[in-house]
Amino acid sequence: LEADEPDVVAALLADWHAGDVAHLLEQSDAEERERLVALLRPSFDAEILAYLPLDLRDEVVSLLNPKELAAAVAELDTDDAVDVIQDLDDGARQAILENLPAETRALVEEGLTFPESSAGRLMSREFVSVPQFWTVGRLLDYLRAAAGTDESALPEQFYDIFVVDPMHRVIGAVPLSRVMRSKRTVRLMDILTKDIHSFSATADQEEVARSFRRYGLVSAPVVDKAGRLIGVVTVDDVVDVIEEEAEEDMLRLGGVGEGDLYRAVLDTTKSRFSWLAVNLVTAIVASVVIGFFETTIAQVVALAVLMPIVASMGGNAGTQTLTVAVRALATRELSEANAARVIGKEMLVGTANGVLFAVLAGGIACLWFRDPLIGLVIGIAMIVNMMCAGLFGALIPFALHRMKIDPAVASSVFLTTVTDVVGFLAFLGLASLILL
Amino acid sequence: LEADEPDVVAALLADWHAGDVAHLLEQSDAEERERLVALLRPSFDAEILAYLPLDLRDEVVSLLNPKELAAAVAELDTDDAVDVIQDLDDGARQAILENLPAETRALVEEGLTFPESSAGRLMSREFVSVPQFWTVGRLLDYLRAAAGTDESALPEQFYDIFVVDPMHRVIGAVPLSRVMRSKRTVRLMDILTKDIHSFSATADQEEVARSFRRYGLVSAPVVDKAGRLIGVVTVDDVVDVIEEEAEEDMLRLGGVGEGDLYRAVLDTTKSRFSWLAVNLVTAIVASVVIGFFETTIAQVVALAVLMPIVASMGGNAGTQTLTVAVRALATRELSEANAARVIGKEMLVGTANGVLFAVLAGGIACLWFRDPLIGLVIGIAMIVNMMCAGLFGALIPFALHRMKIDPAVASSVFLTTVTDVVGFLAFLGLASLILL
Repeated sequence: LEADEPDVVAALLADWHAGDVAHLLEQSDAEERERLVALLRPSFDAEILAYLPLDLRDEVVSLLNPKELAAAVAELDTDDAVDVIQDLDDGARQAILENLPAETRALVEEGLTFPESSAGRLMSREFVSVPQFWTVGRLLDYLRAAAGTDESALPEQFYDIFVVDPMHRVIGAVPLSRVMRSKRTVRLMDILTKDIHSFSATADQEEVARSFRRYGLVSAPVVDKAGRLIGVVTVDDVVDVIEEEAEEDMLRLGGVGEGDLYRAVLDTTKSRFSWLAVNLVTAIVASVVIGFFETTIAQVVALAVLMPIVASMGGNAGTQTLTVAVRALATRELSEANAARVIGKEMLVGTANGVLFAVLAGGIACLWFRDPLIGLVIGIAMIVNMMCAGLFGALIPFALHRMKIDPAVASSVFLTTVTDVVGFLAFLGLASLILL
Repeated sequence: LEADEPDVVAALLADWHAGDVAHLLEQSDAEERERLVALLRPSFDAEILAYLPLDLRDEVVSLLNPKELAAAVAELDTDDAVDVIQDLDDGARQAILENLPAETRALVEEGLTFPESSAGRLMSREFVSVPQFWTVGRLLDYLRAAAGTDESALPEQFYDIFVVDPMHRVIGAVPLSRVMRSKRTVRLMDILTKDIHSFSATADQEEVARSFRRYGLVSAPVVDKAGRLIGVVTVDDVVDVIEEEAEEDMLRLGGVGEGDLYRAVLDTTKSRFSWLAVNLVTAIVASVVIGFFETTIAQVVALAVLMPIVASMGGNAGTQTLTVAVRALATRELSEANAARVIGKEMLVGTANGVLFAVLAGGIACLWFRDPLIGLVIGIAMIVNMMCAGLFGALIPFALHRMKIDPAVASSVFLTTVTDVVGFLAFLGLASLILL
């Protein structure tokens, strides 16, 4: 890849898109990364940071000095600057802020006052807003003049013109394509869309992302409490949010945190330990249940052979329901309105598959151990456990969601406990009633 | 919600955004849905279909007649029309196509010739392309004239002007905001971005989505084999792809298919059955392994009590690794370049946590059954199983990916088999060596 010709590589990288450079840094190991950053350093493009996952961002920032970084960050739009700075260590963040030009610094610091994961953190402070009585011609003249005098007066890219009243409250928006279709004499008032979606600066980014998706938006205004326009959220930031939110839930269901891929061995071990520790407790609870039936098992060892089947099928059926429910809660497809229906359906599905697998597993157990009673026991236990799996697989995430706990994090521990305990209890309990 | 005043509801819904109507239909049960669709029928907006999940789309389509549907679909941009039609049953699709105006029909049918999930299916056929020698002024005049004569000549919304050569090959693009900043006399050639990202019509939609995300694109040209511009992909379609791809992987890891939430009980039962059947086979394999040690268990029943702990911890540690690996493969953060490093790291993390939990579980087992040897056995088995969990949790998805099999679908079955078999084998095997 990179031979010993640093100048060639540096020249090459200078032409690359920031997204590509970030991707290259991701794929490299720590040592290569350090060498690459050294090459990029003379004219470091802070946009690269915006494209890096959080853990790598810290690492790369630590390789640069605050002055260089501040110069690079000052080149960014405010939304990207806030995005890059917000997740850094306090020290690094302060050092960069102090080296920013006063005006940029004020905007970035204001951006940081909004709650994490809010529209205020996502928004850019650069936007185009004009009075409602302007015509298309006047708007074009204004934009051309602004571009001619001070390039930084306009955002690098924009998609909608926001029309405001004298109090700077948003009245509506005109997509650029509509402006370009219209004659110079047309008044903006006559072509604006009034029914637009605006967000308060404290709105959660998930809510913003959902609206962008539901209404196919490209940019949307952010307003303060008085309805005054203070910023704009654009779709490129929302795309990141959508991907992150979906990824977050998936990783949480699997019991891992974000950025896990880039952590060092020791950090990864630590971060995964707590999840495994919770699972150890769960497993021990299940073992205690088995312990109640030690004498039964001693008499019929076949039970020890078969019991994991019941628990495992319940666990898998429950995970199916759980995954659907967690995802549907995240996308708001599952809500109070249809919760009872969904929970009822899942219980029915669990029971139906329970009956099917009761016949299968019962038949196999009966043939294997030549004892129809063992088949009967595993069959009944299977139905009971898979019904519970369906019920709790839907109920647990919904209950956690109502208690404002993220169902993706906690659901599967509770569920495994239920399906293990119910599975072993039903199977071994029935066995000691029927077989002994 | 809806009283017995259908006219009021119908009038209300007519003002709603298609995304909101779709959301309402999602939240309703089948009966409510039928009543709502009846209300919407007189002036059905086909865009509603584009916002509905697949299974509901079929249901709603079956409530409308082909003529009405065709009239509604004809109003859509071609990308949405193709999107709505592509997933319908053959019969319904044919009926709609036959009732479309000839020109729209030709475009939609051409769209359907591209492979599923390709850029060709995503793209819209409506775009603005102009020769390179035009000036900004001429472009504006052209757009205004086109808007004045035939509204359908221009796409409803567009974000970039594509500049083409006489052979209709894409030379570059000019974002609308740049056009608006420029004086009428400026030539497009002088303000166009040459280094743009274009896609072939057969490019996979995942690849398109990755590029949009990596480069923060809003629209991108789709070209045929000769490099000629044939369509445009816009970010609103890509947002759906990003969300769907992330969701798909999560659901597949959980052993369920898409649209599961809306299926009837019987359909859901059927669709989940196959996954559970595979798991039954896995569970039986594990049971067979336990069966080898029946005599050992009969002598030391404590083994039956403790053995699920080893298997469960291995399963959970493996799932953590698996989730990270599947996600990283989907986002291309994991590739040939860093596979060996990631697999090695995961094995180390597994072993490290294995040692920690060996001490914990060993200590507990030793105290519980007052036998240090049992503690030793469970400890060693724990280390072995968690090391394997880390190794196979990373190796299995990577191997499947190389064999062009979706790791999200198949990985977890293989992994559970490995962690169960290794767990029981190590624990019971060591027990029969050490304890007997």
